Amino acid sequence: MDDVYFMEKAINEAKKSISEGGIPIGAVLVKNGEIIGKGHNRLIQSNSAIFHGELDAIENANSKNRLTGKDYQNSTLYTTLSPCPMCSGAIILYNIPRVVIGENKTLLGAEELLKNNGVEIVSLDNNECKVLFEDYIKENPETWNEELKRVDGTTSLK
Amino acid sequence: MDDVYFMEKAINEAKKSISEGGIPIGAVLVKNGEIIGKGHNRLIQSNSAIFHGELDAIENANSKNRLTGKDYQNSTLYTTLSPCPMCSGAIILYNIPRVVIGENKTLLGAEELLKNNGVEIVSLDNNECKVLFEDYIKENPETWNEELKRVDGTTSLK
Repeated sequence: MDDVYFMEKAINEAKKSISEGGIPIGAVLVKNGEIIGKGHNRLIQSNSAIFHGELDAIENANSKNRLTGKDYQNSTLYTTLSPCPMCSGAIILYNIPRVVIGENKTLLGAEELLKNNGVEIVSLDNNECKVLFEDYIKENPETWNEELKRVDGTTSLK
Repeated sequence: MDDVYFMEKAINEAKKSISEGGIPIGAVLVKNGEIIGKGHNRLIQSNSAIFHGELDAIENANSKNRLTGKDYQNSTLYTTLSPCPMCSGAIILYNIPRVVIGENKTLLGAEELLKNNGVEIVSLDNNECKVLFEDYIKENPETWNEELKRVDGTTSLK
């Protein structure tokens, strides 16, 4: 139940991104049942190359109160979409032990890397995450295709 | 010779970080013999969790002119220190084909992951990079130990 609750909060972040003209991917970082950071993809609206939802949530969590190693090690990251290599690397860097993923059908990220590094993955196969993302691609094919070209379709890792 | 020249520019970024009270790690992104982005570690001075030198350089490169996939694929990233899992993930995400590393003796990053994903690594074993970083640790043991605890000593990947 908690996982579904916090995924809703990540979905709210994805919707916030849409309202800003951005890609609907959102994330929240949760420690001891409390959201300590929220974030969403800001590639379009902030012309960023690195602010994916997960990194935005991790950065925002730290900006309020500088987190300790223990904070990260006791947290779960919720993300509406399977995390890319960069965000997976951040999860591994900070030893975040658990990642709850809204969906990985539209894009599969670096889940193998996470698993190989002992990160627990919970996949919710959430339809709302999928529909939000698919609708965005349908309505913004040029923007999305440009984004895909920027990463040359990279979604997973060797 | 070019690699030594651009590493000097990355070292200048590391020194800029020291002048701001930060950790001396710097990076530059170079395309066709031209620096398109500079950056340095901003964990301390900007209270960041994600602005390592490499991500800062990648973000700054994009902020001036939105980069295309081809731009990244024709670039080399210079960094004074072996890149962590997060920064290595970003290098892989954007298909940056070549990374020149100042030194990896003080901290070894996710070089295996880079190699496994086809990234060419050039190690310069640059003494100035090493001395800058070692001096910082010596002069700021508490700050540095806190940083190390935040990542639980994570420097490489499984």
